[in-house]
Amino acid sequence: MIKKRIRRLPVWVWLPVTGLILGIVASLLPANVALAADPTGAETLLAEPSSALDYVWILVAAFLVFIMQAGFAMLEAGFCRAKNAVNLMMKNLMDFSIGSIAYFAVGFALMFGASKSGLIGTTGWFLTGEDYDVGRYLLFMFEVVFAATAATIVSGAVAERLKIKAYFIYSILICSVIYPIYGHWVWGGGWLSSLPFGLGHLDFAGSGVVHMVGGLVGLAGAIVLGPRIGKFTKDGKARAIPGHSLTLAALGCFLLWFGWFGFNPGSTLSAYELRMSVIAVNTNMSAAVGACAALIVVWLKTKRLDLGMAMNGAIAGLVAITAPCAWVEGWAAAVIGLIAGIIVVFGVDLFDKLGIDDPVGAVSVHGLNGMWGLLSVGLFADGTYGNYTTALPHVTGLFYGGGWDQFIAQGIGALTCAVWAFGLGFIIFKVMDKLFGIRVSPQEEIEGLDLGEHGARAYPNFPVIEDLPYD
Amino acid sequence: MIKKRIRRLPVWVWLPVTGLILGIVASLLPANVALAADPTGAETLLAEPSSALDYVWILVAAFLVFIMQAGFAMLEAGFCRAKNAVNLMMKNLMDFSIGSIAYFAVGFALMFGASKSGLIGTTGWFLTGEDYDVGRYLLFMFEVVFAATAATIVSGAVAERLKIKAYFIYSILICSVIYPIYGHWVWGGGWLSSLPFGLGHLDFAGSGVVHMVGGLVGLAGAIVLGPRIGKFTKDGKARAIPGHSLTLAALGCFLLWFGWFGFNPGSTLSAYELRMSVIAVNTNMSAAVGACAALIVVWLKTKRLDLGMAMNGAIAGLVAITAPCAWVEGWAAAVIGLIAGIIVVFGVDLFDKLGIDDPVGAVSVHGLNGMWGLLSVGLFADGTYGNYTTALPHVTGLFYGGGWDQFIAQGIGALTCAVWAFGLGFIIFKVMDKLFGIRVSPQEEIEGLDLGEHGARAYPNFPVIEDLPYD
Amino acid sequence: MIKKRIRRLPVWVWLPVTGLILGIVASLLPANVALAADPTGAETLLAEPSSALDYVWILVAAFLVFIMQAGFAMLEAGFCRAKNAVNLMMKNLMDFSIGSIAYFAVGFALMFGASKSGLIGTTGWFLTGEDYDVGRYLLFMFEVVFAATAATIVSGAVAERLKIKAYFIYSILICSVIYPIYGHWVWGGGWLSSLPFGLGHLDFAGSGVVHMVGGLVGLAGAIVLGPRIGKFTKDGKARAIPGHSLTLAALGCFLLWFGWFGFNPGSTLSAYELRMSVIAVNTNMSAAVGACAALIVVWLKTKRLDLGMAMNGAIAGLVAITAPCAWVEGWAAAVIGLIAGIIVVFGVDLFDKLGIDDPVGAVSVHGLNGMWGLLSVGLFADGTYGNYTTALPHVTGLFYGGGWDQFIAQGIGALTCAVWAFGLGFIIFKVMDKLFGIRVSPQEEIEGLDLGEHGARAYPNFPVIEDLPYD
Repeated sequence: MIKKRIRRLPVWVWLPVTGLILGIVASLLPANVALAADPTGAETLLAEPSSALDYVWILVAAFLVFIMQAGFAMLEAGFCRAKNAVNLMMKNLMDFSIGSIAYFAVGFALMFGASKSGLIGTTGWFLTGEDYDVGRYLLFMFEVVFAATAATIVSGAVAERLKIKAYFIYSILICSVIYPIYGHWVWGGGWLSSLPFGLGHLDFAGSGVVHMVGGLVGLAGAIVLGPRIGKFTKDGKARAIPGHSLTLAALGCFLLWFGWFGFNPGSTLSAYELRMSVIAVNTNMSAAVGACAALIVVWLKTKRLDLGMAMNGAIAGLVAITAPCAWVEGWAAAVIGLIAGIIVVFGVDLFDKLGIDDPVGAVSVHGLNGMWGLLSVGLFADGTYGNYTTALPHVTGLFYGGGWDQFIAQGIGALTCAVWAFGLGFIIFKVMDKLFGIRVSPQEEIEGLDLGEHGARAYPNFPVIEDLPYD
Repeated sequence: MIKKRIRRLPVWVWLPVTGLILGIVASLLPANVALAADPTGAETLLAEPSSALDYVWILVAAFLVFIMQAGFAMLEAGFCRAKNAVNLMMKNLMDFSIGSIAYFAVGFALMFGASKSGLIGTTGWFLTGEDYDVGRYLLFMFEVVFAATAATIVSGAVAERLKIKAYFIYSILICSVIYPIYGHWVWGGGWLSSLPFGLGHLDFAGSGVVHMVGGLVGLAGAIVLGPRIGKFTKDGKARAIPGHSLTLAALGCFLLWFGWFGFNPGSTLSAYELRMSVIAVNTNMSAAVGACAALIVVWLKTKRLDLGMAMNGAIAGLVAITAPCAWVEGWAAAVIGLIAGIIVVFGVDLFDKLGIDDPVGAVSVHGLNGMWGLLSVGLFADGTYGNYTTALPHVTGLFYGGGWDQFIAQGIGALTCAVWAFGLGFIIFKVMDKLFGIRVSPQEEIEGLDLGEHGARAYPNFPVIEDLPYD
Repeated sequence: MIKKRIRRLPVWVWLPVTGLILGIVASLLPANVALAADPTGAETLLAEPSSALDYVWILVAAFLVFIMQAGFAMLEAGFCRAKNAVNLMMKNLMDFSIGSIAYFAVGFALMFGASKSGLIGTTGWFLTGEDYDVGRYLLFMFEVVFAATAATIVSGAVAERLKIKAYFIYSILICSVIYPIYGHWVWGGGWLSSLPFGLGHLDFAGSGVVHMVGGLVGLAGAIVLGPRIGKFTKDGKARAIPGHSLTLAALGCFLLWFGWFGFNPGSTLSAYELRMSVIAVNTNMSAAVGACAALIVVWLKTKRLDLGMAMNGAIAGLVAITAPCAWVEGWAAAVIGLIAGIIVVFGVDLFDKLGIDDPVGAVSVHGLNGMWGLLSVGLFADGTYGNYTTALPHVTGLFYGGGWDQFIAQGIGALTCAVWAFGLGFIIFKVMDKLFGIRVSPQEEIEGLDLGEHGARAYPNFPVIEDLPYD
C-alpha cells in the first residue's frame, strides 16, 4: 500500500524531498575545523601572489572537464538509437544539473570537509560559512565536474530502458554519497590514502575515484535492469544494435579526449607542478595507442575496421592512464594504453557472453580500465616523481624495482572501489526497482523512451526506421 | 522609385557601402587621448611583468566566449526545422564575421574610446594609431566576442522568416552602434555607470549589455516580422513547431554553458581577482538550478519532461547570473537560477499568448532574464566584494541591508536598456521593412529559406518531412 | 609475385612493421647533444619560476589545437556524403592516433632534435633519455597536435575513394618524415630559417609547415587517385556533389576557428610575448574578412549565398594569417583575409577546371592560401615586431620599406615546401598505388566506403538517398 503510494509520487516530489533529507542529515553532522575564509581573494593574493596562476590553471582545467559532459552526451546518443536520443540528452543534461546541486549541498563536504576518522568529511555544506572562500570555491569548481563525470558514465550502461525517475534519484545519490565518500577515502585524507603499503593507495586523477565508480555503478544498473529487448537471441547470442549517428559519436570521442586534457593535467591542482607537461603527453599517448590497439584486435578477430571500438579504445586508454599519468614515462603510457585497448575489446565480448547488456560499453571502458589504471601505477611508476609540493617521496612500481608494495596498495583500493560502488549501486537500483520498477514498459521500450517519457522526438523532420527483429 | 532601386541593391553593395558610411562618420569624430602605444608588448611587460598572466587569462576567456557562437548555431539549428538549417548556419557564421569587422571599424571605438561626456567613445577606429597596442588589442579581443554574442542572440528570435539581407544589415548596426553605445554607458565610463544611486548601474559580465540588448532587439524583430506561417491556429492558439535535431540543440546548450565560463569569470579582466573562482561556481550553480527549475515547472504544468525547456532553463540561469555573478554567494546564485528557470517558462507562455513568435525562446531567455539578472544585483549582492583592484566599495543589495539604492540603479539601467535596444531595434527593422521588405515570401517560407536564399539543402542525403498543417 | 604478396598484407602487419623499420632507422642515428633532463620539473621551476606560466599557456594552446581534429572531422563529414561518414570519422580519429605514435617515435626527433647540418634533427627518439624532461615533453605536446593537423588536412582531398590502408600508411609517413623534416628546416634551426635573405624564411605558426604541406600532399593524393565517380560529366564539366550535413560542417568550421586561437597565439611558445593579443585579433580579423570575401565573390559570380564557400573563406583566412599573424597590424590582417577569401573561390574553380577532384576544397584552402600566407609576410610585415625574447631584429615587408629581401626568402620557402610536399606525396601515393592499388573498387565507391571498408553505416536509423547520376 505504502509501496504503491511511493511509486506514484512524481519526480518533482522525489527530487526536492530526497535533497532535503540529505541536506538535513548533512547539517546535523558537526563542523570541526575553522578556516580563515577569504571570499574576495584579496588576502589570499596578498599572502601568496603566485597563487593567481594556480587559479587560472585550475579553472581552465575545470572548464575543459565540463565539456566532457557534451562528449558523453554525443557519444551515448550516437551509440544508441534515434528513438531514445531525447531521453539520453535529458539524462546527460540533468545528471550534471542535479549532480551539481547534490555535490554543492552535501557531496563536497563529505569528500573534502574536515575528516572524521578518515571515513567522511564533515564541513562545508552548501559552501557557506568558513567555506565561503575563494580557495574552497576553486576546489569545488574543479571537483564538481569530476563528480558529474562519475554520474554521467552510468547513463551509457543503463541506456534505452531505465525510467528517468530512477535516473534522477540515482544521480542525486551518486553525487551526494557514493562518489564523495569513496573520494574522501582516496583524495580527502581518508584511510585508503594512508594504507601501510607503498605510499598508500594512489589515484592521480581518478581511474578509480571517477571511472571505476561510474563503471561499476553502471554495471549494477545494467544487471538489475536486464538486457534491452532484442539484444540477445533466444539462444543467448548477443546481437549488435547499431547506434543512430556515428558522426555524433565521433564528435563525442574527440570532446572527451579534449576534456581529458583538463582532467589529468589539471589534477596537479597547481600550475607550479611542471610535470603537467609529462601528464599531458602521457594522456595523449595512451589514448592514441588505445585506439590503435582496439582497432587492430577487432581486425584480427573479425576482419572489420570497427570505428566504434576504435573510439572506445581511445577512451579506454584515457581511463587507464588517469591514475598513473603523473608517475610514468611516455613509452609506459603507450604500453598502458595498448593493454587498455585490448582489455576493452575482450571486456565487451565478456559482458556480451555473460548476458549483460551495456549499450555503449561503459563498463568495459570505465570499469575494467579504471581498475587496470589503478593497478598499472604499481607496475610502471618509474620513481622519478612524487609530488614535490607536498613532499611525497617518489612512487616506484614493480618494474622499476619498487617491489610489490605499491601494487598491493593499488589492489586494495581497486577492490574496495569495486565492492563499494557495485555494492551500493546494486542496492540502490534494487530498492528502487522494488519500490516503483526502474524499467520502462516493453511497449515504451520498443516505441522509444522519447515518446513515452518526453512526448517528443529528437528528429521530427526525418523518417526514422529500425529493422531490429523483436523476438 | 528610389525606394524600389534601394530595394534592388544586392547585399554586396549594401554591405560595403553601409560600412564605408559608418567608417567615414567615425573617422570624422575627433580623437582626444594619446596613449603610449606599445605594439610589441615589450614595454608593458617590462613595466608590469605580472601582466602576462592577465593576457593569458583574458585571451583564454575570450576564446571560450567565441565557442558560444557554435553553441548558438547548434541550439538555433536544432530548435528550428531542417529546411532552414543552412540559413541559420549562415546567419550565425556571418553575424560573427560581419560583426567582427563592424566592431573593429567603429564599435570598439564608440564603446571603449575616450569618452565624450559619458555618451560615446571617440578614439580607436580600426585599432590604428595609438590603439595599435597590445593592451588595446587584448581588450578588443575580449570585447569583440561579446559584441558578436549580442548579435547572434537575435537570430533565434527572427529565425525561419527573416530575409538574410536584412540580417546582414542589422548585424552591422548592432555591432557598430546599438551594442557599443549602450555598452559605453555601462562599461566604457558612461553615464549609467555613474548614476547617483548605489554604486551606479552595475552589470558584471553583461546580463544587460549583451543579453537584454540582444533579446530586446530580437523582440523588436519578431514583432515587426510577425509569426511564422502555422505558428498560430486561426483562433490564435500557439502551436509547437518542433525543431529538427534535439541532439544538436543539446550540444549547443553544453557549448554555451562551456563558453559562459569564459564570459563570466573572464570579465574580471584580471587574473589577480581570485574572486573568479566564486564567479565560476555561481555561474555553474545558477545554470544547474535553472535547468531543474524549468524542468519541474513544465512538469507541473503539463506532466511532460520537456528537454527543450530544461535547456532553456539552464541558459536562462546563465543569463541571469551574468550581471550578479561577482557579488553574490553560491546559494544566492542557486536562488537566482531558480527564479530564472521559472521566468523562462512563463515568459515563453506569455509571448505565445501575445501572438509573438520567438522560435527558440530567445526573448524569454535573454531579454527577460537579462532584466532579472540586472535587478538581482540590487537584491542579493552580499557586501563582501567590490572590485578591489579599482578600489570600488563593496556592493550591497536589499537583502543584506543595503537599502533600495542599488536596486534603483539597476532598475534605471534595465529600463534604459529596454528602451534603447527595443526602440532602436524596432526602428531599424521597420525602416528596412519599408525599404525592401524584411520577410521572405510565404512560398519561400513554406519551402524553407535554404532553397530560396541559398539554393541548397542542409541534408541532401536524407528525405525531409514536415507534417505541420499550413492553414 | 612479391607485389601480390605485399598487396595481401593486412593493415595490422603494415602498421607495426613500417613503424618498426622507422624506429630502427631512427635509433641508428647518433644523439649529439646532452641536455640536463628534468623529468619532474622541480629544477626548472627553481631556476625559472616564471616558466610555470609558459607551461600553462602552451598546454592550453595545445589543447585548443587538438580540438581542431574534431573540427576537421565534422567539416569533412559534413561536406561529404552520408555513405562515407564512418570512413571519414575513422580517418580523422586514426590519423591523429597513428600520427601521435609516429611523431613520438620518430617525427619529433627529426624535427626538434639536435640538428645535423641544418637538414635533420637527430635526438629525442621516443622522448627517452635526455628528452625525458618537462620542457621537451611540453614542446612535444604542442608540436604533436600540429603534426596531426598536417596529416588530417589531406583526408579531405582524398575523401570518398581512398583505401583506408593507404591512408594509414601515408599518415605514418607524413607524421614521421614529410612534415618533421620540412618542419626542421623552418622551425628546428634548419637551412630555410637561415636563408641569406631578409631574416631567413619566416613562418610564425605554420602557413607553410602545416597547411601547405598538408594541402600539397592532398593535391598529390587527389591527382594520383583521380576524381570520384560522377564528379565530372562526360564532357569534363564539374558537378557539385553536395555534402550530407551542413550543420555538422558549420560546427566543424567553428571548432577550427576556435582551435586556431591556440594555433597562432600559442605559437609565441611563451606567455611573456604580449604580442599574443595582436596575434589573436589578427587571426580573428583575417577569418572574418575571409568569410565575407568568399561570400561576396561567389554571390557576384552566381547570385547564390553559398554557405560552404563562406566557411571555406573563413578557414582560408585563418590559413593565410597563420604565417604573418605576429608581424602585421589588424587592418593588414583584414586585407590578407580578403585576398585569401578571393583565392579560395578561384582556387576551387581552377581545380575543377583542371579535372582534379578535391571534395572539400582542402587544396585551395590549405595549399594555395598557405602559400599566400607565406608570401604576405614579405609584403605586410610592418617592422614593429621581431621576437624580442630571442633578440630577432624586426621583420619588415615590401609595403613598409623593407625591400624585396624578405619576400624572396618567403618565396624560396614556399617553393621548397611545394616541391618537397607535393613531390614526396606524389611518390608515396604512386608507389602505394603500384603496390596494392590505393583506390577502392567502383562498386564500393558507389555503395559507399562505410559498407565496404567497415561493414557499418553511420546512420542506420535513417533512410539514405542520393540522386547523383552515375554516368
